Amino acid sequence: MPDAVIRCLQEKLNLMRERRPLIHHLTNFVTMNDCANMVLATGASPVMAHAPEEVAEMAALSGALVLNIGTLTLPWIDAMVMAGKAANKVGVPVIVDPVGAGATKLRTESCLRILDEVKVAVVRANAAEAAVLAGQAGEVKGVDAVSGDALSAAQALARRFGLVAAVTGVIDYVSDGQKTVKIENGDAWMGRLTGTGCMASSVTGCFCAVEEDFFAASAAALAYYGAAGEIASGRVDFSQKSEAERWPVPRGPMSFKTAFFDAVYTLDGRRAAELTRVSRVS
Amino acid sequence: MPDAVIRCLQEKLNLMRERRPLIHHLTNFVTMNDCANMVLATGASPVMAHAPEEVAEMAALSGALVLNIGTLTLPWIDAMVMAGKAANKVGVPVIVDPVGAGATKLRTESCLRILDEVKVAVVRANAAEAAVLAGQAGEVKGVDAVSGDALSAAQALARRFGLVAAVTGVIDYVSDGQKTVKIENGDAWMGRLTGTGCMASSVTGCFCAVEEDFFAASAAALAYYGAAGEIASGRVDFSQKSEAERWPVPRGPMSFKTAFFDAVYTLDGRRAAELTRVSRVS
Amino acid sequence: MPDAVIRCLQEKLNLMRERRPLIHHLTNFVTMNDCANMVLATGASPVMAHAPEEVAEMAALSGALVLNIGTLTLPWIDAMVMAGKAANKVGVPVIVDPVGAGATKLRTESCLRILDEVKVAVVRANAAEAAVLAGQAGEVKGVDAVSGDALSAAQALARRFGLVAAVTGVIDYVSDGQKTVKIENGDAWMGRLTGTGCMASSVTGCFCAVEEDFFAASAAALAYYGAAGEIASGRVDFSQKSEAERWPVPRGPMSFKTAFFDAVYTLDGRRAAELTRVSRVS
Repeated sequence: MPDAVIRCLQEKLNLMRERRPLIHHLTNFVTMNDCANMVLATGASPVMAHAPEEVAEMAALSGALVLNIGTLTLPWIDAMVMAGKAANKVGVPVIVDPVGAGATKLRTESCLRILDEVKVAVVRANAAEAAVLAGQAGEVKGVDAVSGDALSAAQALARRFGLVAAVTGVIDYVSDGQKTVKIENGDAWMGRLTGTGCMASSVTGCFCAVEEDFFAASAAALAYYGAAGEIASGRVDFSQKSEAERWPVPRGPMSFKTAFFDAVYTLDGRRAAELTRVSRVS
Repeated sequence: MPDAVIRCLQEKLNLMRERRPLIHHLTNFVTMNDCANMVLATGASPVMAHAPEEVAEMAALSGALVLNIGTLTLPWIDAMVMAGKAANKVGVPVIVDPVGAGATKLRTESCLRILDEVKVAVVRANAAEAAVLAGQAGEVKGVDAVSGDALSAAQALARRFGLVAAVTGVIDYVSDGQKTVKIENGDAWMGRLTGTGCMASSVTGCFCAVEEDFFAASAAALAYYGAAGEIASGRVDFSQKSEAERWPVPRGPMSFKTAFFDAVYTLDGRRAAELTRVSRVS
Repeated sequence: MPDAVIRCLQEKLNLMRERRPLIHHLTNFVTMNDCANMVLATGASPVMAHAPEEVAEMAALSGALVLNIGTLTLPWIDAMVMAGKAANKVGVPVIVDPVGAGATKLRTESCLRILDEVKVAVVRANAAEAAVLAGQAGEVKGVDAVSGDALSAAQALARRFGLVAAVTGVIDYVSDGQKTVKIENGDAWMGRLTGTGCMASSVTGCFCAVEEDFFAASAAALAYYGAAGEIASGRVDFSQKSEAERWPVPRGPMSFKTAFFDAVYTLDGRRAAELTRVSRVS
């Protein structure tokens, strides 16, 4: 499995940057701009469109569809289901980010409705959200995870809905219900910014647009994204490199943010494969 | 009073960063991302949620509720009133940012409706907005203040509605109708960015979530926020400090913005208390 | 014509920074924050307001109105038409950004509706969007241009609707249907960020608020905006200047973004006029 992840990074990231697939989002107002710039930095082309009159048309033009419920309302959930069904019809993979599932009834029920009516390729969530959707106990405080066993939540969620669960935290777990990998890339600075979960979902969408094996695509996306976070935090040793390749330690969250987008943009598949720390756990 | 402000900075900022209270926002589309990142940098946990089906549930989970009318519509105002009433029921403090009150009838009337139907703890406004809501004359040009006596507007607004008025400008005034302080922290760069008013309201919400004395909380929030602006502008003398603690003069508004968020994040309560320039005016 | 552009830069940018006209936007959720900060950096005052109850009142207070359909829905288009008609009544120039026209029926038809019901001063578009609205063939992939002859699209669009067409790309073309100029300012980094088209429309609005000759205003706006991009990319030779005036080469798109806003803010009319590369093509 780690081999498939490495291969995905080495081969598919370049392919993405050539093809620049459209990644259609129905996502939240808070991090829309960040998700759009993150998709561009990764190497694909973002579009945000939520009008019921156009979501089906736009989804059909796309390489992947990302549904993120961060600032949901009922009309947006309706539009998400419409877009999801249209994507299903033409084989466009659907990625769901169930922001704050468990925090309110509306969030939990809306996610379950999407998972019921749309064939979802990947759910990218934190441990608490995954546990709630998997039917496990779990507390959710607002939109941030406070509890939950990430590994078991990933496996249970994947099995319950027959999809790939990509559960991020200090350690990320990706499971398809049978096999599971853990990814130890990433940096604590990523948790000090809003939207790092949303952006992880968008990057997962980018990889799913060029890699049919959504399990490998999800793991590759999170490894790539986490490795960029390590570079941006100044943690990656570039001591044998020229000065221009060294990244300073950020002064605070916003200088980290600048470096993070820059690192995603400059990270290529070969270097990402070297930095990847993915291992099989089941 | 200045003593209570100093004590709030010294004691409550650390408490906030341990507890990380949820700050629930119904706020404008323009600066949502900035407000979320500002809350994180301050030390609390942001959530933005506006669906009528969940606002009451979310408000009840929160340490403070921030209502900002920057891009208001009637359904959003309805949701704000619902959230505000739910917050009132469980004793969660409500902070209102009346963006552009006075510029259009809709804005003025919506603010007055919120102030009528919801028990508001703090209004954080500019001088023109405060004057309009206090029933004083005042011109508002779009969403930026052009006139108004900040001190008298703060006092009149506080008295009219029985709340804390936190009126920001070159000098900030915080009044509960009886006593008033002025805060001389801040930097001109803050006025060259969109959303510095909105973010001041969000930071006020953060402090109100951990300090029951909303007068002290509001003054502490504005002093802390303004001091971070001074640090980010390169104006604070760190000459006895190591090089890593010196902050460069910004090249323009966006490098100031990066430094500003970083400064908020790195500023602790002890240092903020040292930098505070708060004094009693009545 | 290039003379009128130079004169506009030399005289009207200062005037804008003194008067700080209000630039009213009904624009998309993705880049609202960027557009607001770009307007501030240019020297005007942004306001975003879309409620049907206030758009007419706000438009009438403004120096220009920018309608951008990036995340359109039918109620937003209705509000855009209302705002546009109110602007027409009081002689406030209307700038339209037809994001993704051609990608979906909703986008194309909504743009045509606006152009039919509102007297539009300037359409700022990419080549594919301009070609679609001009009735020429053209493929649009999501919201990014993939084809189209920019020069002929600009001329055809200007003639069809009797307005100024400002078509941006590697080379920008501005046409009023009779005369056309090309503008060779700009940098490839600008295409690696979301919203650089939206922000170009906002800057065009800023110039139209102080320059009645919308042809000169549009060309001046794009030259100024592109020159700032060159400065931010480190491409402009400041070797005779002091170190503080030299701009480093960006590490990636987000450090470019920071530099770009800073460059817009620091660029004055005299220097912009020197950097301008505008020439008559017809």
